[in-house]
Amino acid sequence: MLKHIEHIGIAVDSLEEASKIFDVLFEKKAYKDEVVASEGVTTRFYKIGNTKIELLQANNSTSPIAKFLEKKGKGVHHLAFETDDIESEISRLTSAGFNLIHSTPKKGADNKRIAFLHPKSTEKVLIELCQENNT
Amino acid sequence: MLKHIEHIGIAVDSLEEASKIFDVLFEKKAYKDEVVASEGVTTRFYKIGNTKIELLQANNSTSPIAKFLEKKGKGVHHLAFETDDIESEISRLTSAGFNLIHSTPKKGADNKRIAFLHPKSTEKVLIELCQENNT
Repeated sequence: MLKHIEHIGIAVDSLEEASKIFDVLFEKKAYKDEVVASEGVTTRFYKIGNTKIELLQANNSTSPIAKFLEKKGKGVHHLAFETDDIESEISRLTSAGFNLIHSTPKKGADNKRIAFLHPKSTEKVLIELCQENNT
Repeated sequence: MLKHIEHIGIAVDSLEEASKIFDVLFEKKAYKDEVVASEGVTTRFYKIGNTKIELLQANNSTSPIAKFLEKKGKGVHHLAFETDDIESEISRLTSAGFNLIHSTPKKGADNKRIAFLHPKSTEKVLIELCQENNT
């Protein structure tokens, strides 16, 4: 089951420039940065209510975020839904005909195991399933 | 202050087709439809955890959603943040240099008063401020 929206990913050209805007909008500073070397991104997290906002900056030209920025420009990149059993959700959604980008969970930022659904399956919304590593 | 993410708006070509997907993804049916005649849209609401997902279908070619679909195609349209005092937030953000599409609140779906920020101000993320009508 998808329990709630864990975070919203936003692709930006520059964390530094984006933070100038979001710090004022949210009236707070981001609470952490984290590099995900395997994806070629640096992430920066804000928390608004119970939802995280994850800014995503590409660190090299082969990063999926670099490709997204080139194709679509900055803006909302993905919606991440938390689940208590990511393997079960991958299996359920695959059986239901969804196209999973990751058929087994991979390591994501923020101590999560994650899997993405292909946006062709989901009304062009890129959806991430995520599960806290220690649950 | 922006308290939490009240809903995420997703532009779709057809509520009927989109619901076939989201009903399965979320393992539940939408709980209501609402027409916003002034915007030329029909909205359809799901609730996942404490956040609403608002599907948006254009009802005529002059609807802002029709224009969005033509320009960008379906996908995430906006992020809506709840505030207890929308006039105060409009004033605060205008003073801070943000470009507000609505300088006074207008009636939105779901018993809300709303105002949008121009995405040029906010890293190409279309952001809605919203306040429940009776608060």
